[in-house]
Amino acid sequence: MVPNLVTALSGPLADLEQRMLEATPAIERWFRLEWQEHTPPFYCSVDLRNAGFKIAPVDTNLYPGGFNNLAPEVMPLAVQAAMAAIDKICPDARNLLLIPENHTRNAFYLQNVARLAAILRQTGLNVRLGSLNPEITEPTTIELDAGHVLTIEPVRRIGSGNRRVGLADFDPCAVLLNNDLSAGIPDVLRDLHEQFVLPPLHAGWAVRRKTTHFAAYDDVAKRFAKMLDIDPWTINPYFEGMDHMVFGDAASENKLGERVDAVLTRIRRKYKEYGIDEVPYVIVKADAGTYGMGIMSVKDASEVRNMNRKARNKMSVVKDGLEVSELIIQEGVHTHERVPVGERAADHADGIAGSIESGVAEPVVYMIDRYVIGGFYRVHTSRGNDENLNAPGAQFVPLPFASSCNFPDPGQRPQAAPNRFYAYGVVARLALLAASLELERTDPAAEAH
Amino acid sequence: MVPNLVTALSGPLADLEQRMLEATPAIERWFRLEWQEHTPPFYCSVDLRNAGFKIAPVDTNLYPGGFNNLAPEVMPLAVQAAMAAIDKICPDARNLLLIPENHTRNAFYLQNVARLAAILRQTGLNVRLGSLNPEITEPTTIELDAGHVLTIEPVRRIGSGNRRVGLADFDPCAVLLNNDLSAGIPDVLRDLHEQFVLPPLHAGWAVRRKTTHFAAYDDVAKRFAKMLDIDPWTINPYFEGMDHMVFGDAASENKLGERVDAVLTRIRRKYKEYGIDEVPYVIVKADAGTYGMGIMSVKDASEVRNMNRKARNKMSVVKDGLEVSELIIQEGVHTHERVPVGERAADHADGIAGSIESGVAEPVVYMIDRYVIGGFYRVHTSRGNDENLNAPGAQFVPLPFASSCNFPDPGQRPQAAPNRFYAYGVVARLALLAASLELERTDPAAEAH
Repeated sequence: MVPNLVTALSGPLADLEQRMLEATPAIERWFRLEWQEHTPPFYCSVDLRNAGFKIAPVDTNLYPGGFNNLAPEVMPLAVQAAMAAIDKICPDARNLLLIPENHTRNAFYLQNVARLAAILRQTGLNVRLGSLNPEITEPTTIELDAGHVLTIEPVRRIGSGNRRVGLADFDPCAVLLNNDLSAGIPDVLRDLHEQFVLPPLHAGWAVRRKTTHFAAYDDVAKRFAKMLDIDPWTINPYFEGMDHMVFGDAASENKLGERVDAVLTRIRRKYKEYGIDEVPYVIVKADAGTYGMGIMSVKDASEVRNMNRKARNKMSVVKDGLEVSELIIQEGVHTHERVPVGERAADHADGIAGSIESGVAEPVVYMIDRYVIGGFYRVHTSRGNDENLNAPGAQFVPLPFASSCNFPDPGQRPQAAPNRFYAYGVVARLALLAASLELERTDPAAEAH
Repeated sequence: MVPNLVTALSGPLADLEQRMLEATPAIERWFRLEWQEHTPPFYCSVDLRNAGFKIAPVDTNLYPGGFNNLAPEVMPLAVQAAMAAIDKICPDARNLLLIPENHTRNAFYLQNVARLAAILRQTGLNVRLGSLNPEITEPTTIELDAGHVLTIEPVRRIGSGNRRVGLADFDPCAVLLNNDLSAGIPDVLRDLHEQFVLPPLHAGWAVRRKTTHFAAYDDVAKRFAKMLDIDPWTINPYFEGMDHMVFGDAASENKLGERVDAVLTRIRRKYKEYGIDEVPYVIVKADAGTYGMGIMSVKDASEVRNMNRKARNKMSVVKDGLEVSELIIQEGVHTHERVPVGERAADHADGIAGSIESGVAEPVVYMIDRYVIGGFYRVHTSRGNDENLNAPGAQFVPLPFASSCNFPDPGQRPQAAPNRFYAYGVVARLALLAASLELERTDPAAEAH
């Protein structure tokens, strides 16, 4: 199976990919040794952007919600990786409590939960679903598309002294969060010392900051680039943080404008160095949070100095109605990939889209433990190549990353699918490693030592 | 992708498979806990036979030689499993020496070596090939079908005091044997205390005995059957050993006849218990060795008491000209699977063979570390369902075990491909676990303690 890439990339990127291909044993050994020192989060998805001259992560999600968008063919890889993860964390685990997001009416998200539960069951766990949603006060059965049902039950404290978390009749050894805790850490999950909580509570958006992640990514990218003898910028987007932002306050917006300018200036310098004929831009977004809310694509500092009320409102509130006062200003990475979408897309495995509608696309790579298990393209037919694609109207084209992400073919050209996807898997794992460093550095338990 | 099964199995087996499907979490947890206690061999392939009323391993190979027969789609699973294995054994490994069999003129075997080397390279290892063949006195390049070449170099002792094994300019941290040491343990591999030798030397046929393996399998099958509340016989073939066999000696052949009778009697009793209308048979084969040599299918003890010279000669010598004096008499398991072969087989994914030639088939399951990575059917168009298929003329039909062996679909019937293959993966892993016990019990280092 070959991905439905409309435009074949070529040019400078091939060099980077070629170098990764040639250095495969060195790269894999490098990762192997890094994983001796650092523990990967249980799972992770990474949004990548491929600009032709640069492949970089732009978002690292520690509560991946799109398992339903992965090709069914990659499920065995997911099960195998989950087995390895469980083995390492709690080999004698019998019961696992999966805590999904609260929005029980999103059919796509529920398909994701079902898929995830199926993967975990196959590793030899009894899996039940516990909800933090206060509206779920008793076991609730939700019907899915395929005639399957999900039963979601209220999470509660259990055991003597209420020291454990579980369901009324279910005592799990491990709790897997698929809820990013944007609304804060709920009391029911605090002070658990007898059960494994994955990922740890400080990975939730109540605590986590993108700037901390990308600071860790700076370190990872620098070391990796040195090993490979490449410019770290070719795999790393510039960024700045901005705290205490008050939207509507002139001084605050001025300061934001200055930081936007600073990042744009650095990008311009690199574009000049490499002779890149593109308009630099930055993405301004909330430093905490997800779901593609509170995101602006900015080409000039004046755009943030003169925001209208609508833009301000859009930027200042994210998921669960939280106010935004901390921002990240991140180098925008153009995506030069287009992927056909729609029902007929699947028929065109030859890569010739013909009259089919296509959209700007970015790859999303899924990992469990240290392993790349699959991925898909997020495609948007009404967005530009310098815009956020994680927005209403996005479509998902599952791609067989799995058959290629860890098995490149040096006999083919770098831009051939198995080789391009190998590079994607490498960059995604760099972001995964950065997440490991980030979680180590922000671990409240570590500080106590 | 659905396997090209000509005959859909049904009847009693569905019960066994159904029970395995329903007990998936319990089974997977059982394996997880077993692997806490026992270390799986680096790799392993298991020949299974599915009689409709019984699925059983009939041969467990610790030097699998058919990686080239696996579907390319399963390579990512193989890489991921190999990563986990290397991680556990020698995480800082950089160089690995792969020692293949000596027969450098077998194009199929060389494809297997190339595939295996590619998998290992992808885990981040520098892989080179070292030969024990005395005819290989200098680096020798062998051309493969696909325009690729293999370079095989003479293995030698290296380092101060010749304490290590390697190539002239290559010092490996680990040695992976794909040579079953039928001809004995070569001096160049003895007394290595600084390098990992995988699998250990006592896994070679110079030391290993099938009766020891199947004695360990008895224990594993008994415990597993108890957990699942099934008759262990439905997953376990009866067997007897026979030492000091002298072909042509009447007393010896009489004794063999008695043991054949004993096994046949036990089988008959079971067939009666289950109302099975088949003719019982046993397989008499060398207790050490492989390659389908020295194997007889026997329905009556008189057949071994009155062997003609040709049969005696065939039985008494196996690979590398070794004489056979130790035998295993194993319950024969009819295979009720037929698989289409030939060039047009692939077109008939619907399972309807039509006018295509088909043959008696047995599944072969491949594992790396504790993970099922894939498999194929060994098919023979001129052999019966009670005969050994590992014989000249056998063909190999790769099947996507990977997309199903660890991801059954309880929504489908037990005889549906993903579910049948899940059962195959379970039984193959029972044999893998038996191999672990076998290697523990025969470890010369353990005896010294």
